This record gives sequence, structure tokens and C-alpha cells, in this order.
Amino acid sequence: MFRSVHDVETPAVLVDLDILQRNISRMAEAARRCGVALRPHAKTHKVPEVGRMQIAAGARGLCLAKPSEAEVFAAAGFDDIFLAYPVVGPDKGRRLLALGDRLRLAVGADSLEGARTLGDAFHAAGRRLDILLKIDVGSHRVGVPPEDALKMARRLAELRGLRLRGVFAHSGLGYHAMTPEAVMQAGQSEGRLMAEVAQVLRGEGLPVEEVSVGSTPTALSAMAVGGVTECRPGTYVYQDASQVSLGTCSIEDCALTVLTTVVSVPARDRAVVDAGSKTLSSDQLRPQVGGHGWIVGRQSRVQRLSEEHGVIDLVEGESLRVGERLRILPNHACVVSNLHDEILAVRGGQVETVWRVAARGRVQ
Amino acid sequence: MFRSVHDVETPAVLVDLDILQRNISRMAEAARRCGVALRPHAKTHKVPEVGRMQIAAGARGLCLAKPSEAEVFAAAGFDDIFLAYPVVGPDKGRRLLALGDRLRLAVGADSLEGARTLGDAFHAAGRRLDILLKIDVGSHRVGVPPEDALKMARRLAELRGLRLRGVFAHSGLGYHAMTPEAVMQAGQSEGRLMAEVAQVLRGEGLPVEEVSVGSTPTALSAMAVGGVTECRPGTYVYQDASQVSLGTCSIEDCALTVLTTVVSVPARDRAVVDAGSKTLSSDQLRPQVGGHGWIVGRQSRVQRLSEEHGVIDLVEGESLRVGERLRILPNHACVVSNLHDEILAVRGGQVETVWRVAARGRVQ
Repeated sequence: MFRSVHDVETPAVLVDLDILQRNISRMAEAARRCGVALRPHAKTHKVPEVGRMQIAAGARGLCLAKPSEAEVFAAAGFDDIFLAYPVVGPDKGRRLLALGDRLRLAVGADSLEGARTLGDAFHAAGRRLDILLKIDVGSHRVGVPPEDALKMARRLAELRGLRLRGVFAHSGLGYHAMTPEAVMQAGQSEGRLMAEVAQVLRGEGLPVEEVSVGSTPTALSAMAVGGVTECRPGTYVYQDASQVSLGTCSIEDCALTVLTTVVSVPARDRAVVDAGSKTLSSDQLRPQVGGHGWIVGRQSRVQRLSEEHGVIDLVEGESLRVGERLRILPNHACVVSNLHDEILAVRGGQVETVWRVAARGRVQ
Repeated sequence: MFRSVHDVETPAVLVDLDILQRNISRMAEAARRCGVALRPHAKTHKVPEVGRMQIAAGARGLCLAKPSEAEVFAAAGFDDIFLAYPVVGPDKGRRLLALGDRLRLAVGADSLEGARTLGDAFHAAGRRLDILLKIDVGSHRVGVPPEDALKMARRLAELRGLRLRGVFAHSGLGYHAMTPEAVMQAGQSEGRLMAEVAQVLRGEGLPVEEVSVGSTPTALSAMAVGGVTECRPGTYVYQDASQVSLGTCSIEDCALTVLTTVVSVPARDRAVVDAGSKTLSSDQLRPQVGGHGWIVGRQSRVQRLSEEHGVIDLVEGESLRVGERLRILPNHACVVSNLHDEILAVRGGQVETVWRVAARGRVQ
């Protein structure tokens, strides 16, 4: 029997099943239209049930960052996983070796020293691990610059125990763009740079079967570029206030909200809810997104957080009373998932099911 | 058999047992000297084993925020818990009622509407719940201003199912002080304000057996004020970079660090470790504390975080190589605890035991 959302104890993380399904279908359809494989980054939800909805809609497989996350999804039956992260170390190599027995696996690489630690483990077992070379398309986090891609790809391809499957990028720049047009341009630029890199590598006889791009804001524009073969958006599944502020989606597209209770109204212009940084995270993500979460149906925002307190500055004309319940749209959905053991899947005011965030906290 | 820290997979959270024991003993001794009861805020560790060390050193009981946290510690045998939070709602009232059977319990209150939801549950069961009135000593989060304390205390004392045990405050102001002297003054001011409030309430015949203050930076100065009966510091047990920057402690007093591996060195002035905001949290806490974590033994700092990446800006003269291990002192220890299921307790380079962070993620 379903439980009403009214009977849910707060704070609690809710995911609207209708919005979730619509977000999943839309992105899958966009990838189909572009003839590009969709490989959602499952870090946003960390929930096998949501991953299965993505696969059912046509996704080729999932993307994750760490071997311990892949272990959770492998145990849940997923059979095609790419770790879009420069995984490094002989201990990680052993974990990947065990994973490679059970599924089609690939990992990211951007250094010889790092890749060698994995290749050695696979070589000793008489096997080879698929790797994708990470290209830095402008966010200056990890990856080699496009002009160094050929040199690094050649050297990686020579390492024992490894097989070069392709190249990948993540346009973190989209998150810093100030207008929807600039976000679109960041995606186009990512797609074009990657298609060029792939052409150069292939021209020199290197195997590049995969040209993988994507983040939620840049996904649609990057996957439309000829030569791109795969796209890896994550946040689109839930969406969040940062995506709304980027123009990636509207508030009505946000599937994940946090249900809270007002626990204190100590002043006329201040109310405090029972969701703090332990529930919403302290992620700001974009300076343009003021505060720490939008309140659904209100103008007032959560402006300050401590661990268990969300302090709302009440705008003129809005008031709240102790015991009142609010839904908060968080700045960044992925980090909210990582704080909670359970997510309530709701439809029409009823809790249909409770999902365990099975890959929560898997950092190794 | 003990495991060497060298064999630990990264990222991992380490707690040095010798430093931990020293921090616990020092604060217990300071409270004894002042004749004040110590009630550590266990949110910093969320680990029953650490709570037992605090009780063994002389703490009267523990402080927490939410009923679900108290349930974890009650199940672990703790018998005196104060929830320093304006707990609100009939569902919470029922949880507290069950808890009250098993231990000496009190909760915070700052509104009649909120306190009534708890009192009604206790009254219906023919019992009374101890409450402490929260006083806002300047941080403008929750609590009533000192000048409204008498009026609110009178009305709370009249509610059915409740018993007024005293008053409490938390000088969040200490965290915004710019000098150690200003931190000390914030503590003195908190202690004096609270002693005055208690005197006014007692003068009007209200029962105030507890005058509870404290945060780690202000603990020593607040507990030294005459009339204060109890102190509730939390972070002192582990300490962190924010406390070092406040002058509360030195780097050598920090028991908790995060062990990480360098996974990428994409440029001469940049290295990336496998600990991002999923490991270190994105808490900044104090604007004076630049970046997202200090690297033990290095000048370079973690300057940018994404979920799985910590981006280090390498200062002139420092270099790192892929595969190298670093220990990072996080900005805020409490939120790091809340991200991890396990903490490794180490001594002299050996992992002596693994603690489950039993109350992690308990937000309700």
C-alpha cells in the first residue's frame, strides 16, 4: 500500500517518477536522433533501479568514476561500464581485473605512469583493459591538451595489458558559461575538438572507435557534432537549480526535491528548516545561483546552511510558520544523492517505492 | 594483525589515536578545572567508540541534533543525551518518547508551536520531556534573543508534557572572529549573556538547573564564566584546518586527515588527487581558510574540487608525481565524517581498528 508524502518524516529526498521518466526518455530520444550512443553518468543517482530505466530507454551502458561504484552496478547486473576517471594504482588494477571478468569495461587514462599500474595487472593475467585517453577541452582539471593527444595516445597504445578504445572529454566549461548560447557553444567546441583529435589519431593509424563527450548542459550540442560517437550526461536524470539557472531545463523538469519542515521562525524575516548541509550539501556550483536551494512555489531562498539548519531569508510578503512543510530544489542533485541512504520515489503525492542509494559513498 | 597505512586503498579517512586521546583528555581536564560538565557534540565523529572515549575521560553525556542520531547512540548504550536542536513534529515526538524510556533525554526548543508537538506526545503517555530554551547569543540562526528569554521560558514552562531544565546557546560568532582574541571574547560574551539570562529566569522563579554553552573555538573562554554549568564542544575531538586558522589548535593537534593518491599531473603547476567533494566536502566554513584542504608537509593547497577530483595548484618549487600519496587536512572535520561509512583508526603508521560511522547520514 502506498504512503502519502504527507506522512513522510523530514528531511527526505523525493524523486518524482513521471518527471524522471520524461527526462530519461527525452535524452535517449535526442541521442537516437543524433545517431550517438548514450552512456549516462550514474553518479547523479547511484541507484541501480534508475540505471535500469536508462538502459530500458536505450542507453548503451553506464558511466561511473571509481571501481567501487562499478562493483555495485556490476553486482546489480549491469554489463557495460566506462569509468570516466584516471584510475591509478595496482590495488585498483586488481579490482578492475575482477570486474573485467563480468562486464565490458573501460577506464580513462591521461598518464603513462597511471595507465601502467593498470596494464601491468591485466598483462600478468594475460588480458587487456580498454582505455580511453582523456582530452582536456578547456576545463583544466585532468586530461592532456588536444595538441599532445597524438603523442600520448601513441605511447599509451604501446603499453602492455592495455587496448586503446578511443578518446573522451568532459566540458566542465559549460558550467561556467553565462548564457544558454555560451553553453551551446561550449558543447559544439567540445564536440569539434574531439572529432578533430580523433581524425588526427586515426590518420596516424591509431584505433579510435569511441569519441565520447558530454555533460548535461552541453550534451545536446556536443552530440550533434559529426564524428562524436557517445555522450555521457549525468544530471539530466534529476536536473537541479544549477541546470535551471544555466537554461538547460525549467523548474518543472526537476525530478529531485528535498522535503523539509520549518523548525524555527525566530524573526519576522527569518525561518529555519530541518535540512542543512548534511541534506542539501554546501555545493554552490555556480556563483550565479544565489544561496543554497530554491523553495518550490516561493520567492524566498535558503541563504545560509549549517549542518542541520537551512536559514531562509524571508522576502517581503512571504511568511512561514513552525511545522510547515516545504520542498527545496537543491543546487546540485548529484551531491544530494551522495548524502542519503534512501530516496523516496513518488508519483502524484504517493510514495511508490523506496530506493537504496546503493553506490552512495563509494569513493575508492 | 595490524595493517600498514601504506597498504590502505585511497581515498581513506584516518584518525590518529594518540592525537585523538590527547584532544579528549585536554578538553575533559579543562572542564574539570572550571567545574563545568562536559557534553561533547558527537556530530563531529558519529562513532560510538569515540563517544565512549569521551565518557571514559569524564564527559557527562553526549550532545546530538536529531532523534535518529540519538537512536544510534542509545542502541550503543549511551544513557544521557541532549539534542541541541529545535526538534519539531508529532512523528519526532513519538521517537523521543521511545528514546526517553531508555536514557536521560533533553531537547532544545525556541517556539511554543514546536515544543507543543513534543509535549503533547509525552503528556498523552503521562510523562514529561526535559527541554532547554535556545538563546540566540548573536549568530541569528535559531533561538530567542536574550531580552525575550523570560517571556518564552514562562510560556514553555506552562506547556503540558514538558519540564524546563535550563537554557542553552551556541556561539557561532566564534567562527567568524578574525583573531584569537576576538574568538575568546565571543566565548566570554556567550558565557556572560547566558549567566545573566539564567539569573533573570531564576529571579522570576523559573527552574534553570542547566546553563549550557559552547563550540570548540569558544569552549575554554565560555566555560570559565561563573554560572555556566555545561559545555558542548564538538570539533575539538578531531580538529581541522578551520580550527587551526582560528588559532584554536595547531596542525599537530589535528587527528583526522584524508589519505589520497595523485591520479594526474596534467601540467607543471597542477596535480589532481582522488579526493574530491565526495571525500572532503565542499565546506569552506571560513573565508580566511583558502581552498579545500591543506596538504600535510607541503605549501601547495587543494584549490578546486569536483566530486572525485581535488585540484592542487602547485606552488613554485613543489612537484608531485602520479601515484604519490598525500595526507590532506580538511577544512571541516564534521562533514567529512558524514560522507564516509568507515574511519581508519591509526597509531604509528598502523591501522589498529576500523570504526563504522554508525550515525552517518542520520538527518531525521
